[in-house]
Amino acid sequence: MTRQERAALTREALIRAAAAEFERQGYASATLSAISAEAGVSPGALHFHFENKAAVAAAVEHEASALLRRTARSVYGQRSNALQNLTDTSHALARLLREDVVVRAGFRLSCAQNGRTDLNLRQEWHSCVRQRLAEAADEGLLTPDTGRQRDLARTVVAATVGLETLCGDNGAWLSAETVTGLWRALLPLLADPRALTGLDPSGTPAAHAPAPAPAPTGGGPAHPVAAGPGPAR
Amino acid sequence: MTRQERAALTREALIRAAAAEFERQGYASATLSAISAEAGVSPGALHFHFENKAAVAAAVEHEASALLRRTARSVYGQRSNALQNLTDTSHALARLLREDVVVRAGFRLSCAQNGRTDLNLRQEWHSCVRQRLAEAADEGLLTPDTGRQRDLARTVVAATVGLETLCGDNGAWLSAETVTGLWRALLPLLADPRALTGLDPSGTPAAHAPAPAPAPTGGGPAHPVAAGPGPAR
Repeated sequence: MTRQERAALTREALIRAAAAEFERQGYASATLSAISAEAGVSPGALHFHFENKAAVAAAVEHEASALLRRTARSVYGQRSNALQNLTDTSHALARLLREDVVVRAGFRLSCAQNGRTDLNLRQEWHSCVRQRLAEAADEGLLTPDTGRQRDLARTVVAATVGLETLCGDNGAWLSAETVTGLWRALLPLLADPRALTGLDPSGTPAAHAPAPAPAPTGGGPAHPVAAGPGPAR
Repeated sequence: MTRQERAALTREALIRAAAAEFERQGYASATLSAISAEAGVSPGALHFHFENKAAVAAAVEHEASALLRRTARSVYGQRSNALQNLTDTSHALARLLREDVVVRAGFRLSCAQNGRTDLNLRQEWHSCVRQRLAEAADEGLLTPDTGRQRDLARTVVAATVGLETLCGDNGAWLSAETVTGLWRALLPLLADPRALTGLDPSGTPAAHAPAPAPAPTGGGPAHPVAAGPGPAR
């Protein structure tokens, strides 16, 4: 293993340890000494990678954001229609939030007031919902009662954001079963009856594929979760 | 004004100043000196009332809880039916959260992990929703498709909790208009078609009455938001 590879592994271990510490203690009470101890590295090694606690938190946010965006793009690439894609995307992101402490901690850090970065992953999700619903309208999938579409879009945003909040009390709120139940309740409100029969509230295989690996170059512009050829945010 | 009355006013000013400071800075970063300065009292006066920051935060939580519970009980006392009461209660609590910094800060403090008290106002709201929906089932108001009731209850909890979370980004998420839109979307899912025509998603006058004053004795047992003659939580 080269020195560069070892450094990358140490950095990754520090990010994961920091996420666990932020989740347990909250950002303000987390300490750098607890993070380096949990990662099994010296305080000096931590300071080689990160100047201070804010820099570690920013790295957690950026890693969470990268994984959420990459997953959303991957699910979007396998889309059948916009409503199924919205359902599938919510399942895929819920699984990341359930399974990956970096995603959970990064999501919450990015949503906090006095943010350390200009990320807000809750607002990106909100944009994603609005974009998919606009695409669904273009595809003729939505209930013909267009006067209700604003109420319905807000209800979908609120209900999905609420699941993430409630997951802080009890992880079952982001289980596949709960997310499926939410779409079983909401899809009949959203979809035109002819479109409804083709929709699977439990998600298609696109929703349940493993999270995609990062692009080998690691470069390129950052794409928000809402990325896709739909209308601009 | 008696010495006792002056002390009560000072305590109230400190609770309000603390709520504003917690909302701006977060609990961990808030300082007692900023709280006493904002309340216009000396640090010594603060320490006469509160031993430390945790004691001030507990007082904010208890005051928020008392006002939310009192309001929920008052709306419950004017109930016509359980679904309208749920709608009315959400409007009344949303208004308190919009208008009163002590309610907002106390609600959030009570929901934080590592809570300083055994309150969790989000869980009380959750119980309130489940209790009202159980009453609505008893009253024959719900859609006859009982297999969907668990999905629907979770969706209502998630969507209302989501509005409170989103309000941290933008207060309009708890506006009367947004809450009304949520019920315009959700009541047709929940209600039997015969019951639906009698329901007002914008709330009846019971939802918009001023918050009730505390009982003069200030005593008696604490009642959760879900209080009412319905089934036990």
